[in-house]
Amino acid sequence: MPTYTAPLEDMIFLYEKLRNNKSYNEIEKYKEVTSDLVKDILQEAAKINQNIILPLAKIGDENPTILENGVVRTPPGYKEAYKKFIEDGWQSLSCDPKYGGQGMPKTVSAFFDEMLSSSSLAFKLYSELSIGAYNCINSHATDSIKNKFLPKMVEGKWSGTMCLTEPVCGTDLGLLKTKAVEQSDGTFKISGQKIFITSGDHDLTENIIHLVIARASDSPKGTKGISLFLVPKFVVKEDGSVGQRNGVSTGSIESKMGIKGSATCVLNFDNSIGYMIGPKNKGLNSMFTMMNLERIVVGIQGLGISEIAYQNSLAYAKERKQGKSHNSQSGDGADFIIEHADIRKSLLNMKSIIEGERALCFWLSQQTEVSLYHKDEKTRQEATDLVSLMTPVVKSLFTDMGMEITSDAMQIFGGYGYTKDQGIEQLYRDNRITPIYEGTNSVQAIDLVFRKLINKNGNIIDKYISLIKKDILIEDQKIKPFIEKLSKNIEILAKFTNWINEKMKNSKDDVSAACNDYLKVLGLVATAHAWVKVLEVSFKDYEKNKQFYEEKIQTANFFFNRVLPRIESYYLTATSGSKYIMDFKFN
Amino acid sequence: MPTYTAPLEDMIFLYEKLRNNKSYNEIEKYKEVTSDLVKDILQEAAKINQNIILPLAKIGDENPTILENGVVRTPPGYKEAYKKFIEDGWQSLSCDPKYGGQGMPKTVSAFFDEMLSSSSLAFKLYSELSIGAYNCINSHATDSIKNKFLPKMVEGKWSGTMCLTEPVCGTDLGLLKTKAVEQSDGTFKISGQKIFITSGDHDLTENIIHLVIARASDSPKGTKGISLFLVPKFVVKEDGSVGQRNGVSTGSIESKMGIKGSATCVLNFDNSIGYMIGPKNKGLNSMFTMMNLERIVVGIQGLGISEIAYQNSLAYAKERKQGKSHNSQSGDGADFIIEHADIRKSLLNMKSIIEGERALCFWLSQQTEVSLYHKDEKTRQEATDLVSLMTPVVKSLFTDMGMEITSDAMQIFGGYGYTKDQGIEQLYRDNRITPIYEGTNSVQAIDLVFRKLINKNGNIIDKYISLIKKDILIEDQKIKPFIEKLSKNIEILAKFTNWINEKMKNSKDDVSAACNDYLKVLGLVATAHAWVKVLEVSFKDYEKNKQFYEEKIQTANFFFNRVLPRIESYYLTATSGSKYIMDFKFN
Repeated sequence: MPTYTAPLEDMIFLYEKLRNNKSYNEIEKYKEVTSDLVKDILQEAAKINQNIILPLAKIGDENPTILENGVVRTPPGYKEAYKKFIEDGWQSLSCDPKYGGQGMPKTVSAFFDEMLSSSSLAFKLYSELSIGAYNCINSHATDSIKNKFLPKMVEGKWSGTMCLTEPVCGTDLGLLKTKAVEQSDGTFKISGQKIFITSGDHDLTENIIHLVIARASDSPKGTKGISLFLVPKFVVKEDGSVGQRNGVSTGSIESKMGIKGSATCVLNFDNSIGYMIGPKNKGLNSMFTMMNLERIVVGIQGLGISEIAYQNSLAYAKERKQGKSHNSQSGDGADFIIEHADIRKSLLNMKSIIEGERALCFWLSQQTEVSLYHKDEKTRQEATDLVSLMTPVVKSLFTDMGMEITSDAMQIFGGYGYTKDQGIEQLYRDNRITPIYEGTNSVQAIDLVFRKLINKNGNIIDKYISLIKKDILIEDQKIKPFIEKLSKNIEILAKFTNWINEKMKNSKDDVSAACNDYLKVLGLVATAHAWVKVLEVSFKDYEKNKQFYEEKIQTANFFFNRVLPRIESYYLTATSGSKYIMDFKFN
Repeated sequence: MPTYTAPLEDMIFLYEKLRNNKSYNEIEKYKEVTSDLVKDILQEAAKINQNIILPLAKIGDENPTILENGVVRTPPGYKEAYKKFIEDGWQSLSCDPKYGGQGMPKTVSAFFDEMLSSSSLAFKLYSELSIGAYNCINSHATDSIKNKFLPKMVEGKWSGTMCLTEPVCGTDLGLLKTKAVEQSDGTFKISGQKIFITSGDHDLTENIIHLVIARASDSPKGTKGISLFLVPKFVVKEDGSVGQRNGVSTGSIESKMGIKGSATCVLNFDNSIGYMIGPKNKGLNSMFTMMNLERIVVGIQGLGISEIAYQNSLAYAKERKQGKSHNSQSGDGADFIIEHADIRKSLLNMKSIIEGERALCFWLSQQTEVSLYHKDEKTRQEATDLVSLMTPVVKSLFTDMGMEITSDAMQIFGGYGYTKDQGIEQLYRDNRITPIYEGTNSVQAIDLVFRKLINKNGNIIDKYISLIKKDILIEDQKIKPFIEKLSKNIEILAKFTNWINEKMKNSKDDVSAACNDYLKVLGLVATAHAWVKVLEVSFKDYEKNKQFYEEKIQTANFFFNRVLPRIESYYLTATSGSKYIMDFKFN
């Protein structure tokens, strides 16, 4: 079974040294979230993850969630762990104190999300979707709904879901068939089938609060006729207690490649009682509040699984002996494989991507908080645009890199990596859902290019590029070589952006065929930008913690030499057009 | 369950139009292997694969091979299918008629290997290792051994294994501990443990012939003291009948990520009777005969799995509707996803890689036959060098591309790709062993760069580059744009090669850290070379089969525009040196 030690040193470094977004620091309620407080929280978080949650990963893989006589049963140990999880208050970490939450910012909760993803993604999903549902209800529901449902959800006694997908509509929600019929009392009767519903049913909580998109009887076709409804598994009485079973049943659960401890359900809604959330026919807008935050968390899942894959590869490389290295000190016999250049390269590739991603994610967490809570509307709007821009990037890049890193980890383990014993292949299987769910990575790339670069508030990508250019006006000579490499790649990004803007006018297929490559280019530039911020501190504070900062500098060095140049090929291939692709006859 | 139709048109095209290696055509015994005969064979091969073997894939995944009271039991249906498989003579396809084989060249058997890999890799492995063992015995054993063992192996009544790996020695065989003690009658008693032995035990054949590497009592340490032994599961009597059980037992079988129908065994040899094959202490040389041919077949496995992944993605893209394309003809509702530029790009990426690989493999099959059977020693040697050069390339490139293609197939299927129902995720899991076994892809890259570029016969890579340059001196104006792109990349390959040669002198770690990238560059150039040969015929014979050749030209166009330019980044990253990698302290 893989081992795991939460990367506290790196997390605390980020929280102490890189919490330098001016607008973020103006948010009143976070001023008392000191480094010491965060350190205490993260240390406790590490304990529950390392000791209680990590062992659930293998248990869940070997004893998948099952559907038995209409009841979904989670793997052995899940119930006890979940009970401890909510009792210790982890579910409420980032929630509003008004409903019993602890009000921690995403700069802290993102670290917890990462640890949970490292420990057991399948277990994490039960609480994760609840937070998504919480965010959505909190943003769009009436006070009466909020007061009725949120305290129990924050406490973790009730969980939540997002019910979007149907058999014929995944990416394209306009095709949905689920119906909502308004009743005389203002409630709705919901009927239809939803599929791929994560945590759609399970035995961990007393109630499950489904957020369901459906079409009201008198609503138009397509995406403009979709409304959002809250549909509890058990009807909630006026006094807040759990009443009779609502018309929601579990048709089946999916047998999947990985995350086998997570229940992925087919849910049948049969005249179930629902309450409309937010304005009629604006259901997708409301749902997207939740989806966007959720997409960033999926990116963090990729980061978390990458981290545990790296830790275990590194440990194995230090204990496995095969072959002699070129600089072998051993007179006889083999060297540890960590002495081999190729293995070292693979490990540094992982490390430089992981730490860059973590820094980028920390930057994005600050922007997210500004977008939600800064007192100035214009500042909020600017941050919102940046978060919108980076959401598909973080979701796709981190999850794709998670595939690369878990795969490279298997290669380091060789044949042992392919067997079930070591648990490395499970990391790969578990992570494999992340480039698919919450919108496939191609859908993210389309979203980025067609909706996020330029929006009603102006040219967002230009603002972002300007922001990076401003950030890298650094005098320190030691950073110069890094800046030069990044600048060259910013130029490619700018050229690529111009190409996109040009093609957008009358050759949209060229853009579609290029969007995945564009996302990767932007993602690598953004990660390098995050690395520059880490480098600034590393050179400035070098003498205070030589070993730590030297490692940072060398890791960044690898990223700029060996990861960043991938941009070149993405740009070259993408700009070769699409006519020959669109004309092709697939016989 | 995935469907499969053997790509007969492409295979027959290659056999008819690209069997143009002069030396190959001088091999007497293959002169009567006409296109018509091959067409008949391939049509029958398609039938058994599509009808009998394909269904075993899902069965084997759901009912893995088990070890029960010391007996290894294959999944339901395997026995019946194997019986039919050998009765119809497929096991003997490429074997020497002297021992009952049909004497087909690898230009034919490679197609069969591809079909089997597409249908069920797990099932294929039972016969594949037998062919490996057959080749090794045929090349190195005495006539008496050959006469005793080969006819039954060719018939398929007995199977074979390769027993190399031990708990502490995988890549580094010099560390092996298995001992061989010579007896007064010239036989040996073998004792030790071997792990990861594919088809090490099973219930499909009457006997299993293990080829085991071990150290004779008086042999030196390291790789120079390794000899090769034949150790049957059941001792074979003088009259050729199966006698008593030999001292070989199955300790356990591995629980794996994929190829679950294949038995991966821990074998315990306990004073088992063995016969030395080939000269003492030269066991690795003898084993490598088998390993090298086997490595090419592993590459073909990647190709075969890629083909079935492509076929099913294409079919799904034609029946799944989501979203409107930019050129939507439908007034209302969604288009088939094959109308979307991004999906088309992904499908063409698969197709252009698969068909390029198949053409490259066909070129290599001809070289392999020349290396084995041409009457002129110098011609044989030149072909041997080229085969040696391309073996690690084909093994690694095809299996890595297999991961990319099966992963992209999952993305096209979206959430359905992650569930067990569709069987797409199984292709990904099954293929995941191919970059690991028969030497990890990094080991292949090290082999390529340190042993294959320049050997005792001279500068092989320069000869190969010259050969390509000569092959692309084509006047046809229509091929010019392709040639120009390839020439540019040949220049990068040449520069990269010079860099390797330079660094080899005093900076071997630089070479080690660059070898994976170098292998990819060489592999993409080689695939483009194979595409040029296809293009020559396509333009020349265009009028004879417009639809087929137009598709070839457009597919090649994609390869040269979107796949080949990856070379740029590999070169850029690789040549950034290794000092910062070797100096890194992994604390």
